[in-house]
Amino acid sequence: KFVDSLVHVISFLGENKNRNDVRKIIHSIKVGIALVLVSLLYLLDPVYTQVGENAMWAIMTVVVLFEFFAGATLSKGLNRGIGTILGGGLGCLAAALAQEIGGVGNAIVIGTCVFIFGAAATYCRLVPSIKKGYDYGAMIFILTFNLVVVSGLRAEKIVQLARERLCTIVMGFVVCIFTSLLVFPIWASDDLHDSVTSKFEDLARSIETCLEEYFSIGSEKENRPKFSFNSCKSVLYSKAKDESLANFARWEPWHGKFGFSYPWEKYLQIGEVLRDVAATTLSFKGCLRSPRQSSDTLRASIKEPCEVVGSSLAWTLRELGESIMKMRRCQTVALIMPKLKSMRQELSVVVLASPSTIGGQVQNSDGLEIASF
Amino acid sequence: KFVDSLVHVISFLGENKNRNDVRKIIHSIKVGIALVLVSLLYLLDPVYTQVGENAMWAIMTVVVLFEFFAGATLSKGLNRGIGTILGGGLGCLAAALAQEIGGVGNAIVIGTCVFIFGAAATYCRLVPSIKKGYDYGAMIFILTFNLVVVSGLRAEKIVQLARERLCTIVMGFVVCIFTSLLVFPIWASDDLHDSVTSKFEDLARSIETCLEEYFSIGSEKENRPKFSFNSCKSVLYSKAKDESLANFARWEPWHGKFGFSYPWEKYLQIGEVLRDVAATTLSFKGCLRSPRQSSDTLRASIKEPCEVVGSSLAWTLRELGESIMKMRRCQTVALIMPKLKSMRQELSVVVLASPSTIGGQVQNSDGLEIASF
Repeated sequence: KFVDSLVHVISFLGENKNRNDVRKIIHSIKVGIALVLVSLLYLLDPVYTQVGENAMWAIMTVVVLFEFFAGATLSKGLNRGIGTILGGGLGCLAAALAQEIGGVGNAIVIGTCVFIFGAAATYCRLVPSIKKGYDYGAMIFILTFNLVVVSGLRAEKIVQLARERLCTIVMGFVVCIFTSLLVFPIWASDDLHDSVTSKFEDLARSIETCLEEYFSIGSEKENRPKFSFNSCKSVLYSKAKDESLANFARWEPWHGKFGFSYPWEKYLQIGEVLRDVAATTLSFKGCLRSPRQSSDTLRASIKEPCEVVGSSLAWTLRELGESIMKMRRCQTVALIMPKLKSMRQELSVVVLASPSTIGGQVQNSDGLEIASF
Repeated sequence: KFVDSLVHVISFLGENKNRNDVRKIIHSIKVGIALVLVSLLYLLDPVYTQVGENAMWAIMTVVVLFEFFAGATLSKGLNRGIGTILGGGLGCLAAALAQEIGGVGNAIVIGTCVFIFGAAATYCRLVPSIKKGYDYGAMIFILTFNLVVVSGLRAEKIVQLARERLCTIVMGFVVCIFTSLLVFPIWASDDLHDSVTSKFEDLARSIETCLEEYFSIGSEKENRPKFSFNSCKSVLYSKAKDESLANFARWEPWHGKFGFSYPWEKYLQIGEVLRDVAATTLSFKGCLRSPRQSSDTLRASIKEPCEVVGSSLAWTLRELGESIMKMRRCQTVALIMPKLKSMRQELSVVVLASPSTIGGQVQNSDGLEIASF
């Protein structure tokens, strides 16, 4: 009840803040709840007599696994599970082998095993494809293998110890999954979806502002604040963030009408194309900031067609973004294609001197590429 | 001895591979050595009687702390140390407070503490500036605080337990630092330095290849492979990697002739400017791939001045890159400045129709910006 009311208070406060802050607060509260739940293993006497000191492992699991996005928690949890089982199994085998030999040989065999498996798994962690998805699993493998193989030397009931520990780790994992997926889940897939669709809007606005600044004359120019290319740059540098979101999104169950086979790969491809467009838009910066500017008369002569092209580009981008956002087939494809074609025609009429022509042409072909998606 | 000879064998094998692979192998071997060293706590009887089960914490510390770059290991280690001490101290205080109250209130106080501190620290982890440098420390704080505060309920000698654990963690940290910093250290600072200087070369080559492709005529064009903008794109997307390298580099002791106050911030600024240049170069892609091309005669007329500009741009970039690589004041600044100015003059002579003009101008100003560094 206490927690519930706290959530209410905070979501009420949150109405004045932006959505992102609210999500951060919700996440923090969720972690708090998960920690309290897992601490009950210590706090409740009947449970503690069952679990004992191993309850420590459940706490550790919760602290380490609980991530902002549900997909990240899931992927870390499964990695941890597989790493623990593999490492534990191999560790038991190695410990048994060492026991067979006995004496000083025992310690030597264990040392060699530790070295070989540790080095091999560390090398695997550096391979890009493994690093991307299974880095954490490999680390847990090394950890568990080492702990099991060296404890095998000392502890008598190695198998029982392993079983109990695994049991508490599973408890921690269940608590994590429960709080992460069932209480206000924060999906990486939603974030990726929003990030891709908002890029369209960002680019459309950048192109419009750019053209406005270019064609505003003399006195007007001094007064208006200079267009910063920040939104354009944020699109350009979104690659790493998008990739990690897609990585988490793949682990998240059932998203939208595509179900389990959601085309995350396509999102990354669209992102790639949009980054190309952003690079082109960014190159306008050179034209706007350059000390050499073409004369006002030349500008006036190309103003109208350029603005038509610019606004229809922006319109096209917004249309495409909206159709992806609403996850429906783009209704206006039939309109977009001839529009892009006529834009190309118009551009070839405009004198080649206009620097924006090049940009226009590139965006043209990019637009076509996107439209064909 | 065994390990030494192994290193020799591998570095011999490595001569045929590239430098990066060798470094990965060296890192793997270093991790193996550190693991064996820390396992000695278990394997050697006299040590084990001293340390006991707590040796587990030393192993855990090594597995978790050992990172590819020395700076990353150092930063994680210090984070872990501070997190453990803070968490342990606050945990002890909270446990003592709960003990004072006693009875059922005890468990309630502990639960509340766990919730509040867990949620607050998690919120801090989401603040960008803390996330960047102290994410790991905050996580360890949550973990230690929780473990200490709930164990306080059960264990009698909480302070002794904490001291012993801290002791083994310090042992693990020492082993990490020893192997990471003293045996073939891999410095993030060197990587950042190389990454920035190689960008100059990449861009210079991109510009040259671009111009070559643009001015190659008819039949030649069909035969040659299309220029891929990959090196340009890798420069463009290097932001995240550079920032994490700079983050680690700050923790690394004494680099080059600047000593402890090495200007890593400047490296990031240069990277930013170079990414602008890369974006401009990438926008040539539109000109090269566009189905509409200007006529061969027009091209021929602007070929010569453009090539002069292109080659002197490439020369300037290489010169700047080399001076940064060798960490000396750029000798040719006196040459570069008038050259850039005359280039600008030449460009204004060339018909504005040439698409490379825009690029040229931007790079011009960028070049000036860099030269003034």
